Amino acid sequence: MIYLAINTSSQEQFLDITEQVARALLTTAVSDGICVLFVPHTTCGITLNESCDPSVARDLEMALRNIEPPGLRYAHAEGNSAAHLKAMLVGSSVSIPVVNHRLCLGTWQGVFLTEFDGPRRRKVMMKLLPS
Amino acid sequence: MIYLAINTSSQEQFLDITEQVARALLTTAVSDGICVLFVPHTTCGITLNESCDPSVARDLEMALRNIEPPGLRYAHAEGNSAAHLKAMLVGSSVSIPVVNHRLCLGTWQGVFLTEFDGPRRRKVMMKLLPS
Amino acid sequence: MIYLAINTSSQEQFLDITEQVARALLTTAVSDGICVLFVPHTTCGITLNESCDPSVARDLEMALRNIEPPGLRYAHAEGNSAAHLKAMLVGSSVSIPVVNHRLCLGTWQGVFLTEFDGPRRRKVMMKLLPS
Repeated sequence: MIYLAINTSSQEQFLDITEQVARALLTTAVSDGICVLFVPHTTCGITLNESCDPSVARDLEMALRNIEPPGLRYAHAEGNSAAHLKAMLVGSSVSIPVVNHRLCLGTWQGVFLTEFDGPRRRKVMMKLLPS
Repeated sequence: MIYLAINTSSQEQFLDITEQVARALLTTAVSDGICVLFVPHTTCGITLNESCDPSVARDLEMALRNIEPPGLRYAHAEGNSAAHLKAMLVGSSVSIPVVNHRLCLGTWQGVFLTEFDGPRRRKVMMKLLPS
Repeated sequence: MIYLAINTSSQEQFLDITEQVARALLTTAVSDGICVLFVPHTTCGITLNESCDPSVARDLEMALRNIEPPGLRYAHAEGNSAAHLKAMLVGSSVSIPVVNHRLCLGTWQGVFLTEFDGPRRRKVMMKLLPS
């Protein structure tokens, strides 16, 4: 297992971690398969989306903020239930094909850690499954 | 393949199945890899979220009920299209790292079967992929 | 790796690709494991949902169109940020158990490519991970 440590810098943030993942992949014993990236957290997620134009990630942050139904009376005393909701909608893992130690991402795709209750120190766990 | 049988007890329910999954993992031939949990259903999902404070799961149930756009005229005659929508948003599988027969979940994470059209008898299929 | 080529025919479309995936699975060297289907795109997704009654897929298309918060001022100049949002909510991959070259889908489940910015030529990458 490879562990990536990521520091987020604001309360809500789509952080492009593609380069960090790509570098870690160069060191794996296996060269081909599926790379699983997993976040052991409940108020941040991980997803793939457009990384070329950074305004897409900002639009996604804004849309998620507005997708949360307004006026809900949450029971959870910590007050971050909306962050738990957004983490669930985004998901806790991604699976990406790997060929010859390289992520087979599409032209516009990048890997994003999605912070919803930061800033915090976050962890991404990474395993390459041989195919 | 390991099959878990789960009985849900109400129409909408986030059911914590972490213990059942953890017990099943003790019996696998492989000890390390990625555990894939899959639901062969279209009106329930599976997800990871906070299991320590049970009010989080109740908040997520409530938020999902309210995320569905109101006033839609669904075509599907069975009347459970909203359940299909919520199952899709939550997702039909999770992938969790496993080390030495143990789920590598974060401190607050638990595995939840998310029922949206119950109560029913549900099935979870489980495979441990070696890494 | 197996590549499936899919032509979508409208701007938003849930396209049932179950048969195409099932046929490709008959040719794999491995017979049992987890089939990972991945879309290298940022404005389409892939998901599982009911394929028996085609009105479910149309209901899901409609609900997703209405889940997008109205009146947002997106920054991304291409004007397709809503498509990026829906692709993220649906997800970029699915993982399905396979036994003896056959998808272990539930009675009502089918595999759908979900187009949100078509019509386009799309690609699905497929790997069978041995278990």
